[in-house]
This record gives sequence, structure tokens and C-alpha cells, in this order.
Amino acid sequence: MDLIVVMKSSAAGDDVHRVVDRVSELGMKPHISKGEYRTIVGAIGEKTPQAQEQLEQLPGVDQVMSISEPYRLASREFHEADTILDIKGIRIGGPHVNIIAGPCAIESRDVLFDVGQAVKDAGAAILRGGAYKPRSSPYSFSGMGREGLELLKEAGEHLGMPTITEVMDPRDVEAVYDYADIFQVGARNMHNFNLLLEVGKTDKPVFIKRGIAASVTELLMSAEYVLSQGNHRVMLCERGIRTFAEETRYTLDVSAIPVIQGRSHLPVFIDPSHAAGKRDLVPPLTLAGIAVGAAGAIVEVHSCPDRALCDGPQAVLPKNFVRLMEQIRQIADIVGHRVTQWGEGSHPADPLGK
Amino acid sequence: MDLIVVMKSSAAGDDVHRVVDRVSELGMKPHISKGEYRTIVGAIGEKTPQAQEQLEQLPGVDQVMSISEPYRLASREFHEADTILDIKGIRIGGPHVNIIAGPCAIESRDVLFDVGQAVKDAGAAILRGGAYKPRSSPYSFSGMGREGLELLKEAGEHLGMPTITEVMDPRDVEAVYDYADIFQVGARNMHNFNLLLEVGKTDKPVFIKRGIAASVTELLMSAEYVLSQGNHRVMLCERGIRTFAEETRYTLDVSAIPVIQGRSHLPVFIDPSHAAGKRDLVPPLTLAGIAVGAAGAIVEVHSCPDRALCDGPQAVLPKNFVRLMEQIRQIADIVGHRVTQWGEGSHPADPLGK
Amino acid sequence: MDLIVVMKSSAAGDDVHRVVDRVSELGMKPHISKGEYRTIVGAIGEKTPQAQEQLEQLPGVDQVMSISEPYRLASREFHEADTILDIKGIRIGGPHVNIIAGPCAIESRDVLFDVGQAVKDAGAAILRGGAYKPRSSPYSFSGMGREGLELLKEAGEHLGMPTITEVMDPRDVEAVYDYADIFQVGARNMHNFNLLLEVGKTDKPVFIKRGIAASVTELLMSAEYVLSQGNHRVMLCERGIRTFAEETRYTLDVSAIPVIQGRSHLPVFIDPSHAAGKRDLVPPLTLAGIAVGAAGAIVEVHSCPDRALCDGPQAVLPKNFVRLMEQIRQIADIVGHRVTQWGEGSHPADPLGK
Amino acid sequence: MDLIVVMKSSAAGDDVHRVVDRVSELGMKPHISKGEYRTIVGAIGEKTPQAQEQLEQLPGVDQVMSISEPYRLASREFHEADTILDIKGIRIGGPHVNIIAGPCAIESRDVLFDVGQAVKDAGAAILRGGAYKPRSSPYSFSGMGREGLELLKEAGEHLGMPTITEVMDPRDVEAVYDYADIFQVGARNMHNFNLLLEVGKTDKPVFIKRGIAASVTELLMSAEYVLSQGNHRVMLCERGIRTFAEETRYTLDVSAIPVIQGRSHLPVFIDPSHAAGKRDLVPPLTLAGIAVGAAGAIVEVHSCPDRALCDGPQAVLPKNFVRLMEQIRQIADIVGHRVTQWGEGSHPADPLGK
Repeated sequence: MDLIVVMKSSAAGDDVHRVVDRVSELGMKPHISKGEYRTIVGAIGEKTPQAQEQLEQLPGVDQVMSISEPYRLASREFHEADTILDIKGIRIGGPHVNIIAGPCAIESRDVLFDVGQAVKDAGAAILRGGAYKPRSSPYSFSGMGREGLELLKEAGEHLGMPTITEVMDPRDVEAVYDYADIFQVGARNMHNFNLLLEVGKTDKPVFIKRGIAASVTELLMSAEYVLSQGNHRVMLCERGIRTFAEETRYTLDVSAIPVIQGRSHLPVFIDPSHAAGKRDLVPPLTLAGIAVGAAGAIVEVHSCPDRALCDGPQAVLPKNFVRLMEQIRQIADIVGHRVTQWGEGSHPADPLGK
Repeated sequence: MDLIVVMKSSAAGDDVHRVVDRVSELGMKPHISKGEYRTIVGAIGEKTPQAQEQLEQLPGVDQVMSISEPYRLASREFHEADTILDIKGIRIGGPHVNIIAGPCAIESRDVLFDVGQAVKDAGAAILRGGAYKPRSSPYSFSGMGREGLELLKEAGEHLGMPTITEVMDPRDVEAVYDYADIFQVGARNMHNFNLLLEVGKTDKPVFIKRGIAASVTELLMSAEYVLSQGNHRVMLCERGIRTFAEETRYTLDVSAIPVIQGRSHLPVFIDPSHAAGKRDLVPPLTLAGIAVGAAGAIVEVHSCPDRALCDGPQAVLPKNFVRLMEQIRQIADIVGHRVTQWGEGSHPADPLGK
Repeated sequence: MDLIVVMKSSAAGDDVHRVVDRVSELGMKPHISKGEYRTIVGAIGEKTPQAQEQLEQLPGVDQVMSISEPYRLASREFHEADTILDIKGIRIGGPHVNIIAGPCAIESRDVLFDVGQAVKDAGAAILRGGAYKPRSSPYSFSGMGREGLELLKEAGEHLGMPTITEVMDPRDVEAVYDYADIFQVGARNMHNFNLLLEVGKTDKPVFIKRGIAASVTELLMSAEYVLSQGNHRVMLCERGIRTFAEETRYTLDVSAIPVIQGRSHLPVFIDPSHAAGKRDLVPPLTLAGIAVGAAGAIVEVHSCPDRALCDGPQAVLPKNFVRLMEQIRQIADIVGHRVTQWGEGSHPADPLGK
Repeated sequence: MDLIVVMKSSAAGDDVHRVVDRVSELGMKPHISKGEYRTIVGAIGEKTPQAQEQLEQLPGVDQVMSISEPYRLASREFHEADTILDIKGIRIGGPHVNIIAGPCAIESRDVLFDVGQAVKDAGAAILRGGAYKPRSSPYSFSGMGREGLELLKEAGEHLGMPTITEVMDPRDVEAVYDYADIFQVGARNMHNFNLLLEVGKTDKPVFIKRGIAASVTELLMSAEYVLSQGNHRVMLCERGIRTFAEETRYTLDVSAIPVIQGRSHLPVFIDPSHAAGKRDLVPPLTLAGIAVGAAGAIVEVHSCPDRALCDGPQAVLPKNFVRLMEQIRQIADIVGHRVTQWGEGSHPADPLGK
């Protein structure tokens, strides 16, 4: 049974018949239950997306409730076991914890390579860096564009780390595909459905951040957009939601991690940097995310943040990142997870021994 | 003075000197005020976008406050009088109230023409209809695309009404430009900066809806994106924000209308349909919007909403729209505004006699 | 049918039996519907408050949905027609619109009498003034207490106006009962259940403001507390909710007015002053409230607000209040309502001629 | 300098003089800074609570900004070191982590003693149990009252554990004082200022939960109410805020923990049970709270939650609580904290060896 139509206590017999007929017309099988005060019509079978909206407008209908979630490919019902991705030998999801780190924006070759080396040495698995930056102001630095992509690719190859970078525009999908290993779809573009369809047509992993006002269901629907195009390599990320609590830039919704894990097989990361907005809060929030069971964290690190062109106040210094990685490893162990470690050369050494 | 740097009470003299030096380095003029417990450094002059972020990271700094708003072209300081647009003879903004109406999505020629005629007869000035529909689910009806645009153009010409339709993708800007009179940028795309830049390069008016988690300042920054490209024909629209109050789909923030009007010269509309989610709430919310001083409303009307493919539950029936237009006209009068009326043929008759 | 228990698709037959047994044990009648994938158990009859919580914990249960609202006496199902109160000859609710006005806090005899005379002359029906003020800071002015109550009573008698004042503490109910005509329960005390029970035991009307994070259902549950004690003279008030939108002090949720009116027979007012926080926004928000169909508004007026000890920035000046009352009367007419007017002496002249 | 008055760019010289005069009249020392476009007036000295409100209403004033926080006794500036409480030999605050556990409501002697023994054996330091329960519905179980208090006292003495219970009404302060060791002020009463004043006059510790829509500043102001009466034994608790994210009952704002710790010396706990609303989420959220640095957690445990009269779905089973305590101890260690342990008899054994 997919939909439950609750009739008003004042509904007439004709109202019920009309609902029953429309349920049949929509290709579903009606099932009537008469209570003392109200009648309920269950609708069994595959529902069309507009079925619920249409039924709730019929005379005598009080409300129409959907029992099942609107996503399928993203759900645990469709795919029970945790999805584990393999990106250049690094395993993501399940018991594996991976830290993505690097500068917010790619500003210069020097900073990118310095920070990249520092985060790799500390134990980060994946290198981040923005070439296209969505900025609230048209007058702010909006990234180095293709030149930034080239630097990122070069740094990733030099360090032997997979790379992730944001794509904001369907027209940039091809370029980002050529230069980076993972597409990041930012919070502002979680609802950019055409962009999701474009990255869904590629074979590269997609890392989708939750919109600042998006429900967990909506985030999973955005994943569904990518999955529905045949690209099954999707990761999700909680990065803070907008609430009345203005003491932090956003409110990191750590509860979303276990909630999503209960519903979906996809790996879920946490972004403490954008939620906090201040570097002092980044380490404790990262640890909270690992303790709650996240598949990893994406952390902004900068060697000279008070000269950064973007989001400097939330960047962690390399020396503090070293200490943070240490605590991440210990907490991951306690909750039954394992942090990916670098082995000889640039090969990740699997601590799970598989 | 653009920025005020508040030092901590524990800040040392060196800390103050460092701030003063950085203010100068950033091209601004420092101005020190010593209080009993704290020192304050004012920074006078044009600030770079990252100045605030960089200063707040310096040692001994407690906080950095910006006095001025981050938008310019959208502000009343830049353009004191209300902007009044002229779209095919219809004046928008200032004392003029215009109602935009039509079906949510363009589903068929018949519905579009029927509803179009009905809303024009009732007094709507502009015809709406979606050809590209952003939908949370990849399995929902997502609009007729270019075929829908053709129908909209035909209907607009037939009725002599200007038309508005949503553009979601920078790659569709050219097509929408060819077929419609006004670009609508939806709430989900308010932060789609590349899209804003593209419509900003055209000479057609742009109607920007507030994102469901966007502040008034962020909405004005999105307008600034369009204005900064040379397109000064921008309208704004409050359409409900996401809050804990789940009894309505969104919470219509009527206060945003006078708040925006105090800060900006751009016309501000209200969208009661998407906020309410239920047709019974649409008339009272429309009247609230007109009473609070909006430049108009965008209302979804459908002749057969329980067959609609999109958002049927919030569509007003044509007969109820007639009554609503009557009340809109009366309330507009009371708050010193005037509703655009159709004269002979399809020429708008200016009730203000200008 | 009061509850619908949706079983998981993986639920075993034993799980269903266990639910059926517990439903019976809870004094309700079970009704099983088998779908293709899931079984649903309806529970018919009077439910105990903890029934839903207990059922949702049983093995194999996916979710338990309640069909009916948790309030009874406050609902339209219990009492279909609008409740119309009579307070010293003033009718409240139904088509009657009443404006409550006065200073935020009672600060001095002079200000109270001056403002009282001004708002009565302009057409306000009821005089407001706070003797006990809930303040965020223990160091702020917290009201004149009993001396303020005495002044309010004196002013009400002098002007021939009913009075309303806030009660914050069950221990003050008796004193406020002696001096004022209406108990106001403020937003911070909407969940002060012992206070609600105390005022529910009296025979004086109670005006309950919605908490800043309260749902409409929770507001109606607070009304239920008063109604359940036998006091049926309850009025409700929307005063703004806390959201991320920091441009106003609170976000006035005008949609709540028609939503509550659909569910409850109790009169619903609007408080534009506390929502706005700034006097310029008070007139447009008041008009929005009247246009949306509120039973009235409670407006803070002060003759010298920049000397006020409390909430001066949101107080309207008497001269602006005169103009506002004029517009209120006109808009009330358009939406089929009538503003109470003063007749000879201090008797309200009923514009509806009843 | 306590206040900064920013004049409008259009402000006249007279406007500035008026502000300067009012600043002096309010007992503060004015300090003028002239910028290129605007003048700024600093106000140095002790400010009265209404000073900011009054100044912002003067002609030509754009905004008035306060530099300092409105609380004093709760601030780190007033008391730099962490406050460490001693409650019957148990140390709270600083590096000490304490777990408070027990049933939501006291329902029967058996359940209370069983659960109490179980949580003590697992390592909880303090026993919780509600005798007065605030309930949204007047028809729900509202606690056993004084009989519940007696059971709690008996259980605490039997187990050698300090006890905590909620007080909702100033009239109950005396009774709760006699029977329990810690006053709990619940989220709904965080703004019940008269209650805060009453518990502030006692010498027993007060545990204040953050209101569901309260800012961190407002929570600290509520603490200030207690502190201002001379009771310095205050603990705070983050228990989830109300946001649009309806997947959990409330959104646990873990960031609030380090934010409060930065501003205040008072210990801050976390309540995962009420935030989650579902028992499966309680262990991960507890661990997140400990990882982020909380002074402890308050966890609901029930031996037979599907028979509980209150909040059963969020109660952890005793066997799962044992495992949780183990993880709490390990994570506390990693972040430099120590969980209180029971030694011989009922004496807490200090793991820090002090």
C-alpha cells in the first residue's frame, strides 16, 4: 500500500466512491477500511508522482499520507549493504573513514602544494581545492577557473592523492571531468537538477552537499537524480543547516548522519568548516562527526589563512590538523571504523587488512 | 568608515599596531579610538571583499563589524527613487500593483489558453506558465520544455499579455529570451550565480524569487549579480521561507516586503501560492501581501487543478480568482497603490493617469 | 479510526499479532488491512495519550500515524461556530475586529493615561499595559508590579475601556484577576502549564500568545489546558516566530491566522509590534493581519518612545496610530469584518447592528 | 566603550549633538569619530539596559551596536577558570565528565530502583527522574508529584547517588529542595524568570536546559538570573533546538557546547534523548556530545520502555547503556577529559587523582 487516503468524518458515500474511482484510474488498487467515524482508502501499487496531490484535492478527503519514501535507488530497501566506493585504491564508505582536506579556494601553486603536502603527511586521503567558487557577492574572488583545475590536477598527481573540486555549471562538467577525480556539488546547487543530471551521465564519483534548508529526504532525492542516470558512485555530506542560532555560521546537524545511514546505503561525510565558520570550532565538530559515525570529513586547511582570498577564518592551520588527525583515528577506532592510511609510495594501506 | 575593528580588552599595543598596518595595507585609512577598556580601530575607505575576514583573524581582534551593506546597485543609497519598469506598456513598481497569474506548469494548449483568458478577464496583467519545472523528484513531470515556451508565446500574443517563465539553466537563457518577456529565476536558483550572470547580460527583465533560506541581504546580492552585468530591470519576489512551522508548506515572510522596500528601489512581489501550498490560504495571503505594500502578486490559477501535473493543490479556481482581484483592487487603493487595468484592445489603461 | 500502525515490509506475522494484541489491550479495536508489501493495522476508538508512543516501539512497526488532532475543546469539530466573547459589552471574534493598544510597560500614571486617551480616541477597544514584564536580563526594568496594576485599573475605569495585562506567575493570578479584565499569557509562558491551569480555573478571559517556537497545534493545546478547566473564554495571538530571518526581530507568521481559523473556533489576534521590533514596520504588518482575517491586533503605542523603559523602538506614535486605525477599518470592511466603535459615553456601538 | 552609535550618512550636525547629549545624560562618556561619509559616536562606561534602545530611536541614527555581552557573572571575563562544582563528592565541570541517567518520569518504585541500580552499575554518576512532567497535552500523565519526589530521595539514598529532578513552578521549589540534590529547569521554563529567581535564592545546584528557540546568549542570561541571586552552582545543558529538520524531534546543536565554553565558565551538558526522540540515535549523539567536549550527558534509560508513560521511544535499554558508558569513557579520554567512577562504597573515585 503506497498511499492512505483519510476521509473527513463528514465525507459522504459519493466522496468515497469518487476516491476509489480515481485510485483505480491512477493505476492503483483501492482498499476500503470503515472506522467508526471515518473511512480510509488505501491505494496499493505503483503510484505516479502526482497521485498524492490529485487525491488530496477530491471532495471529502481530509489528508493523503504516503507510506513509502519517494526515493528508490538511494534507499536501503533497494540496496541493503553499505555502498563502498573505490577511488584510485581508496575505499570509501562502510567502516572506512577518509579525510578530505586542502585549501578552500585554489589561490596559488605554492599554497596548494604546501597545504597538500601537509595534509597528506598528516593522513588526509583526498585533496580538495576550489577552482570555481560560488560567492554571495559578485565582487568577491570567484576562483581561478581552468587554471585552478590544472594546478589541482598537477598537485594530485605530484602527491598521489585523488582530488575533489566543485562544479557549479552544467557547462563546466566536461572540464572538471578532465581534471579532477570527484565532482563536488555544493550546498547551493543541491537543487540544481540539470547539473545533477549532467554529472549523473558521467562515470566519476559525485559528492553532494546538503542544501542549507534541505531535508534529509530532499538530499536523498538529489542523490536519486544522479543515480537515476546510471552513476552509482555518490557520496553525501552534511555541512550545516540554517537556523535561528546565529552564534555559528550554520548549525551542524550531526543527527542527520545516523538518520541518513538508516535510510540509505550511500556514504555520508561531514563538513565542519562551513558549518562553524571559525577555525577554533572545526576540531571539536570534526570529532563529533566521526563519533557519530560519519564516513569522513572535509576540512579546510590553509598555511596562511589571514591572507586567504576566501573563508580564511574557518581554515585550520597545518600544525593543528596533525593533532586533529590523531584524535580522528582514535575516535574512529572506538566506533568500529578505520581511517585510511598511506602505505609505501602513494598506495593506501588498508588498515582493515582486506 | 566601512569597517570597525573591536579589539579584545586583553589586546596588547602590538596587536593594535598590527591591525593599523593591515588596514593601511588593504588600502583603507585607520582611525584609532581608545576607550577605557578596549581600543577600536575604524577603517575608512573602499574595502575589498576579503578585508573583513582577514582582519578578524589578527591577534587581539575581538570582532570586525561592517557598517555598510554589501550591495550597491540594488540599494536606495545608489538609486533613491523607486524603480518603475515598463514591460510592453505595463508599468511595474512605485504605486503600480500588477498581478501575474496562470497555471503552474504549461501542460496543454487548452488549459493555458483557458486559464490565460480567465485571468486576463479578471484583471491579471501578466501571464505565467512554466516550461521548465524544477522538481524534487527525477520521476516527476518536469515541464514541456521548448514546446511549452512556444505555447506560452502564442498565448501571450493571443491575449496581448506579457509573459513570464522560469529559466533554470544558463544553456536555456537564449531560448527563453526568444519566447518570453520576463525571465523568472526560481527560489532554488537564487544562488545559481552563473545563471544570474547570463540573464544579466540580456536586456529582458528578471524576476528573482527569494531562496527558502535566503536572507534579504542575500536576495539583494543576487539582484546585484544581474545589475552588475548592466541589466537594471530586476524585480524581486518573497515566496515563503522554510521554518519549523510545518502547517503551511513555507512561511510567507510578509515583513520582508517593507524591509526590502526600505533598503532597495526594486519592485517586490509576493508569491502566496508556493508559500501556502493549499488553495484556501492563497486569497488571504495575497491580500496580506497587497496590504503590506507589495508591487503585486504571482498567483497560480488552474481550471481543473485535481488533474494538474504539478502543484494542483495550491491552484486557485478561475471563479475565485475573480473575487480575489476585486479585493486586491480595493486594498491596493487603501494603501495608496493602484492595480493596472486593461483598457481598449490590449492596452493597459493607466489608472494613475500618467 | 484514531491511529494507523504501518508495519515494515519485513514484519513477520507474529509482529502483526503483537500489535493487534496491544491495540486491544489499550482499549481500542484493531482492524487489519493487508497490502501487497505491507500490513496496516488501524486502531479504532478512544486512544490514551501514550498509545502512539507505545505502539511505535513494538517489533516490526515502521510508523504510527495519528489521524485526529490531540485537542478537542479547542477544535471546530467540538464547536463548529466561531466563539464570540463579550467583554464589558465588547464583542470579540466572528466578524468583529478589535484593536488592543497602549504602552508596552506601565511606567507612570501620566504616560498611561495620555496614551490610553489617545488610543481610545483613535478607536482602540481595549487598553493594554504591562505591570509584570518578562525580561531577558535580570538587570532590566521588570515592571511596576501591583502599583502598575492599580494604575491600569484606574485608567480602564476612567476611560471606560476593558484592560489586559500579562500574568507570568501562578502566584500573581489572584492579583491580576482583581485588577484587570483579561489575562494575557505571553509567548514565553505559553508552555507554563501550571499558569494555564490557574487562569483556567477563573472566569476571566485569557489571551494566549503563541510561543516563538510553538506550532499551531501546540498553541491549541495550550488553549486546551485553559478550556479543560472550565474557562471557555480564550483568545489566541500570533506574535511572530523565531526563524533564520534576522532582519526583523521575529517572523510574523500571517498564514497561522487562517490555519488556526480552519481548525479552531477561538478568535485569533495578531501582534505586529513584537514581531517587527521597529515602529516603521508596525502599520504594514497590522494591515496584513487584518487583511488575512485576524480578529484584531494588539499594538504598542507610546507618546515618548525614546524615553520608554521597555521596547520603545517598536512603539507607534499616537498620531500615526490614528491613521492606522483608519486603514484598519477600511480593510476590515473589505474582508467582511467590522471594527468595534465607541458610541455615546463608553458604550461600544455595534456596527453590525446586533 | 560599550556602545557604538553609527550615524546615517545623511545625519546633520544637530543629530550628532543630540546623540552626544543623550549619551552623557545616560551616564556614559561620548567619543566622536568622523569618517569620510559617516560619524560614529562611541559611548564609554556602564550602560543602562535601555540605553541601546533609546539611542537607536534618535533622529539621524542608523544603528547602535553593543560591543559587550549582556551577561556578566556567567562570563569568562568575570570568572576566567572553569567552574567546578562539588555535589556530594562528585566533581562537575573542568575535565570531569559525568553521566546523569534514569527514567524520564518516575512511574513506580520498581522501575526507578531497577533502572537506578542498572545505570549506577554501568557508571552513571547522578540519578534522574521526573516527578513533575510538563506535557503538551492536559490529558497526558503529568508525573507523580510529591510521591515521586519521595521515591527519588529514597532511591538516591539507597544507591548513594545524588539526584536531579525538574521543578516547573515557583510554588514547588521548597518541596523539590527538600527531596532532591539538583534543581532541573527544563527547556520550557528557561524563560520562567520568577522560577529562576526562586532557585537562585537557594543553595542547591541548578541545571538549566536551553529553550528550543533560545540563543546561547539567552541561555547565559537565564544563568545570570540564578547567579544574580547569589547561587553560583549553575550547570547548562544543550538539548536540541527547533528547526525545519523534522527527521529528528529537535536538532541537537553540538556547536553550542564549544561556543558556550568559550564565553562562560559554567559546565555544559548535552541531552541526546530529547533531541533524538528515538533510542537508536541516542548513543551516537551522546558520543558526539562527549567528543565535542561536553561536561557530561543526561540520558533516559528504561527497563521496559514500551510500557513507559512518557517518552518511551527515546529511552535506552539498560544493556545498551552499559556499552554506551564504555565508549563514553574512551572518547572522554581522547579529548582530555575523565569520566567520574564509583569507588568503594558509594564514594566517587577520582580518576584524576586529586
